[in-house]
Amino acid sequence: VTPLPKSPTRGRPDRDLALELDASDPLAEWREEFVIPDPHLVYLDGNSLGMTPKRTVAAVREVIESQWAGDLISSWWDNGWLDLPLTVGNQLAPVIGARPDEVVVHESTTVCLFQLVNAALDLHPGRRIIAVDDTEFPTDRYVVDGIARVRPGVEVRRGLDDLTDVDVVVRSLVDYRTAALQPIAAETARAAAAGASTVWDLSHAAGVVAVDLAGAGAEFAAGCTYKFLNGGPGAPAFSYVRSDLHDRLTQPIWGWFAQTDQFAMDAPFAPRDGIARLLNGTPPILGLTAARGGISIVADAGIAAIAMKAESLSSYAVDLADHVALTCATAPVPTSSGGHVSIIHPDAVALQRALADRKVIVDKRDPDILRLGLSPLTTRFTDVFECLMMLADLAAPTR
Amino acid sequence: VTPLPKSPTRGRPDRDLALELDASDPLAEWREEFVIPDPHLVYLDGNSLGMTPKRTVAAVREVIESQWAGDLISSWWDNGWLDLPLTVGNQLAPVIGARPDEVVVHESTTVCLFQLVNAALDLHPGRRIIAVDDTEFPTDRYVVDGIARVRPGVEVRRGLDDLTDVDVVVRSLVDYRTAALQPIAAETARAAAAGASTVWDLSHAAGVVAVDLAGAGAEFAAGCTYKFLNGGPGAPAFSYVRSDLHDRLTQPIWGWFAQTDQFAMDAPFAPRDGIARLLNGTPPILGLTAARGGISIVADAGIAAIAMKAESLSSYAVDLADHVALTCATAPVPTSSGGHVSIIHPDAVALQRALADRKVIVDKRDPDILRLGLSPLTTRFTDVFECLMMLADLAAPTR
Repeated sequence: VTPLPKSPTRGRPDRDLALELDASDPLAEWREEFVIPDPHLVYLDGNSLGMTPKRTVAAVREVIESQWAGDLISSWWDNGWLDLPLTVGNQLAPVIGARPDEVVVHESTTVCLFQLVNAALDLHPGRRIIAVDDTEFPTDRYVVDGIARVRPGVEVRRGLDDLTDVDVVVRSLVDYRTAALQPIAAETARAAAAGASTVWDLSHAAGVVAVDLAGAGAEFAAGCTYKFLNGGPGAPAFSYVRSDLHDRLTQPIWGWFAQTDQFAMDAPFAPRDGIARLLNGTPPILGLTAARGGISIVADAGIAAIAMKAESLSSYAVDLADHVALTCATAPVPTSSGGHVSIIHPDAVALQRALADRKVIVDKRDPDILRLGLSPLTTRFTDVFECLMMLADLAAPTR
Repeated sequence: VTPLPKSPTRGRPDRDLALELDASDPLAEWREEFVIPDPHLVYLDGNSLGMTPKRTVAAVREVIESQWAGDLISSWWDNGWLDLPLTVGNQLAPVIGARPDEVVVHESTTVCLFQLVNAALDLHPGRRIIAVDDTEFPTDRYVVDGIARVRPGVEVRRGLDDLTDVDVVVRSLVDYRTAALQPIAAETARAAAAGASTVWDLSHAAGVVAVDLAGAGAEFAAGCTYKFLNGGPGAPAFSYVRSDLHDRLTQPIWGWFAQTDQFAMDAPFAPRDGIARLLNGTPPILGLTAARGGISIVADAGIAAIAMKAESLSSYAVDLADHVALTCATAPVPTSSGGHVSIIHPDAVALQRALADRKVIVDKRDPDILRLGLSPLTTRFTDVFECLMMLADLAAPTR
């Protein structure tokens, strides 16, 4: 695979170039793995809700109509339901650079973050400062503030510049508004040098950035599976904990799926070995089945190739936006993730609606950001071209 | 509907009576709403995993293949996904005697209990004793112990006889081993008289007992939807909080779905009004869709009629077990729920396997309990008859 030049549209902001880029895209065939509801649809919101994998349609039918309806209760053992959070976790592990048995898939991102921030605090007894940025995604800020309310002595520090005395840092690898990408190894090391553990939120990174958690020495991470991992609406989230921490790993929500010898039932809580001690209640089998479908496509296509296409799509979009004089809030890769490109415009709300009327779906973040999602397995260069040309036309009167 | 006599088999432990009872069962037709994978299957484990409603098969197909795949991101608004935890909660409310807008469906039972026990503690500042019984279902005990570990000053008292100084009582309405049913109004009042709030776990009650939360003055309740509510494997759980407590309601897992004006995103956490403040992260749409299917059948059939059939099935089973000299750990209704009948036998493990070889599926709880689930919408009197006769035969050598 030859990477695109840094400014692929320079001198050629035309549809022919987009068509050429699609024709030479080594991942183009993967789009056929997804349900395309309308050939004229330009869907640039896979960063909010990924499209539906055909294999997921089949897998959920199988789980409902054959396993649940047919095999009933025995499915927990015979169809692997009991271990599904770990099985799907192991499918996801190579996509985010985790080692085997370091990832579990279950619950919502909010619950996963709640568990991991508490776990990280427990590794730092006596010191109780959590640092989070004011621009962080709401749930991450809320989780931290909620923990500070119930754990006496825990304080929240806003901002990440000064990590003196900080115990736990909570931050997104990719900013949900600008797509800015943090250097994970350097920032993990900077926090560690200050004595802090970092809980990385990979929601806008997993499935689009070639995250290398092991290489970065990352201790904790969580994220959702319904964006670039195409896991379905409200699909269960994932938690990662570095394996050398598992023996000391604690978390506050104790349920029977984290219990050693779960079906003995009379003993007090004694958490299972390994990442399984993060489990809580009975895992969501339908959601896990859908998550597995989406994750498996990313694993099969390969995160390195996906990340390279994301960079190409993003470079192309940033360059084209510049050419048509749209204001871009997203820096070029590798400073940004490639997963989305944000356009700033005071009429963002109206423009989003006008695009939707023309079957071009983009995302919006108040007050003035249009997010163009660039999900590499389903987004074509022609999609980006159509969207930006239409946006330039629609935005013209106010320029 | 005429209730059965207290001891319906007296003098007639024969198949003809079972057939007569099935023929006069006013709920018999509801079995046709479920996928029956094998006409010879006797499935007495609906208390662990309810059977698959045909309407759920259709509903999940619709949500995946039309809403997710077709309408994509707009489904959050146009297909009601954003409010689905509340919508399904309102469907469930009449089934458990809650008022509108007192129930939310999301996350696992473990997470719901964790939220509610913390919420109940917050209503009792300065006092910090949680009471739970040693025979309580594992997750309920674990949740309480986990909270005591992270909230300084919180102590756990084992046993419910003496509630002096207790702030929060956590208990199941129906015992998962014996099916013993607590008098909810009297026990809620006894705890309240001692100054304690009760968090009721309705997992083995919802969908089989005509629970009247409002009539009982219950403050908090949670439970699963995958047993008698037929919501599917690992289906999301429910939480109930009495409406007059909503203004003061707190919980520790703060996420963006509980936030006022969720998509504004820049404000600090300000919880929504009402039961919605229990929400956490992005809700699990596939699981909620399946839960909705199962709950809707129970709501449509009517919990009063369902509970009456449960009582009849249970009376019949207890009486028949007595007739064939099997040892029953379940008291007659109304002291038990009617949801299952437990048979005690030292060879429980072997007997469960031998029954399964003959297509009779029952549940087991270590060390010596066979649980016969009596899910009223799918269980026939002939199922109970076949199971107990076979069990009597198989158990005979050791008697």
